Amino acid sequence: MIRTVEWHEGRVRLIDQRRLPWSLAYLELSDYREVAQAISDGAVRGAQAIGAAGAFGMALAAQQATPLDIGSFLEYLDVAAVILQKADATSRHLTVWLARMQRRARDETLGSVREIKFALLAEAQQIAAEDHAACQKIGKHGATLIRNGDTILQHGSGGALSAVGHGTSLGVLRTAHALGRRFHVLLPESRPSLEGAHLAAWELHEAGISFEIIPDNAAGYYMRRGDVKLVLVSAARLAANGDFTARIGAYHLAVLARDNRVPFYAAAALTSVDMQVANGDQLPQEIRDPRELHTPFGAQIFPENYPVRNPAYDVVPQRYLGGIVTERGIIYPSFKERFAEWLEAPAPSQSS
Amino acid sequence: MIRTVEWHEGRVRLIDQRRLPWSLAYLELSDYREVAQAISDGAVRGAQAIGAAGAFGMALAAQQATPLDIGSFLEYLDVAAVILQKADATSRHLTVWLARMQRRARDETLGSVREIKFALLAEAQQIAAEDHAACQKIGKHGATLIRNGDTILQHGSGGALSAVGHGTSLGVLRTAHALGRRFHVLLPESRPSLEGAHLAAWELHEAGISFEIIPDNAAGYYMRRGDVKLVLVSAARLAANGDFTARIGAYHLAVLARDNRVPFYAAAALTSVDMQVANGDQLPQEIRDPRELHTPFGAQIFPENYPVRNPAYDVVPQRYLGGIVTERGIIYPSFKERFAEWLEAPAPSQSS
Repeated sequence: MIRTVEWHEGRVRLIDQRRLPWSLAYLELSDYREVAQAISDGAVRGAQAIGAAGAFGMALAAQQATPLDIGSFLEYLDVAAVILQKADATSRHLTVWLARMQRRARDETLGSVREIKFALLAEAQQIAAEDHAACQKIGKHGATLIRNGDTILQHGSGGALSAVGHGTSLGVLRTAHALGRRFHVLLPESRPSLEGAHLAAWELHEAGISFEIIPDNAAGYYMRRGDVKLVLVSAARLAANGDFTARIGAYHLAVLARDNRVPFYAAAALTSVDMQVANGDQLPQEIRDPRELHTPFGAQIFPENYPVRNPAYDVVPQRYLGGIVTERGIIYPSFKERFAEWLEAPAPSQSS
Repeated sequence: MIRTVEWHEGRVRLIDQRRLPWSLAYLELSDYREVAQAISDGAVRGAQAIGAAGAFGMALAAQQATPLDIGSFLEYLDVAAVILQKADATSRHLTVWLARMQRRARDETLGSVREIKFALLAEAQQIAAEDHAACQKIGKHGATLIRNGDTILQHGSGGALSAVGHGTSLGVLRTAHALGRRFHVLLPESRPSLEGAHLAAWELHEAGISFEIIPDNAAGYYMRRGDVKLVLVSAARLAANGDFTARIGAYHLAVLARDNRVPFYAAAALTSVDMQVANGDQLPQEIRDPRELHTPFGAQIFPENYPVRNPAYDVVPQRYLGGIVTERGIIYPSFKERFAEWLEAPAPSQSS
């Protein structure tokens, strides 16, 4: 079982995703500033994994603290939260879970620095457990979409590596596979970051799930031939109306799927829904380093003096979606009412 | 001026496209079997360039011939044609122009081996001149689609390098630029072959035309923002109804352009139309070497034991087309009648 981020013998242990698919290596970090560095260096990727790393980073910061009074200790933790927050600009989970850790530290039932330290580690473990459980439920609900013999096109960082474990869109494939469903996955390589060919391919290879890597440009080719029965993408962040950001290229797949009458579904934990954002126009965008394009993974493939543009995320309008696979079930349009209902009244097992 | 394929001091001179964009190097070949090898090795790309190389290869074969009687000489030329034909399976121009060279060799007005040698060199020069003139006319007609300030998304091997010179879709951009039109070009990198980032980018850079390379996945991003005023692709081969093959990814652009109400045009010489092929379902397909995907240009980017599929061409249904830019003018739907009219009665300047 892949555990992307975890607490291990007093340290934060992370899979170093930069070394995949070539080797599975771990970072074991005993300083929260190293956790921040690992996030900003791209060793951890995916909104949920980054958020969980941030939460464990806070727990680590607490363990590291030299003897302090409670007031100074809380100030020290606030500084740690700022440093961890600065490591990534786009993960909603990082922001939300760092705030949750700070609230927990200020819980008035905690009477000492020692109690706060225990509580923060427990809180980070709880966040990780909730995220893992959500992914497993997403898998269970999403697996109902997959029939024996299907070919599924999967895009975006929805693997175990993007969360604490199991994954969202890849979690659906994992669960379906565990249930004995026989199917085949087409993975666009996902230039420029090559998440498809590197991370998703590695995960499917390890899980023993049948797959082939295709050029991003070939997704339409296989849809037009009628080979693809389902397109599944992972949503990085969702607006209140169901519009969402996803790895660049997701919008191509949405439009192609509609043109070819192929069902197009997004998988996401409800923690990825931001009810404060009305629609996709207000979702955060990101333009990435040109080096990703001209020198991927250290090998220069075209001259660096050629100008480039490298947007990291597509905004996909909700009107293309057949449904959104969440831990509470699959949501069908319109999404807004159900989001509001589920986010205002969390399921019993989550609020306990 | 780029001259991709030409006769130079008794030899066939080709730009070695494998070395672009890093350096501009020429192959000067004095044996027609080297021409065949250059084609099959990918030193020459694009249907028209390959066809012209084949025609010059026939002229070269004729010059190389040891003293023979006419009958033996014609048999020798037939063998040369077979060897040149085997170098590429998809260029319609190669097939058509090799047959034209063989017909010319058998012209009954030619009374000696010496006369046939002269006639074949003249015929290859005529083929090259016609192709170059067609591209320049495509440029002139297509330039009417481009207004000052436009951003144009260009995809596929439509450069001077894909023909004898000037190019088809890139020829449109060249002519518009020469006419003083100010515009900007977005070039998808065109994985896996990287024609966009390598060949098209090199040509636009040399021509001083403003451009940026984008990931193939980002084409929709810029269309959705309203940045793109025209999508221009080069058609490799067209069926009688206007369906066409183009570099993989062209179908994505067709569907995205329609969804965003962006005009979508193909550029092609009328020699690329095959009236024997009724529609796109019968156009030839090609699955390429997996190494293009996992080890582009010698740098391995993902493990070679991961299975891949690598289709080279999309079939784009004609219904997505705003029009087809040809040397006789822009054709608007429906295409079939105009193709039939123009191919049965070539323009005076071409039939002379």
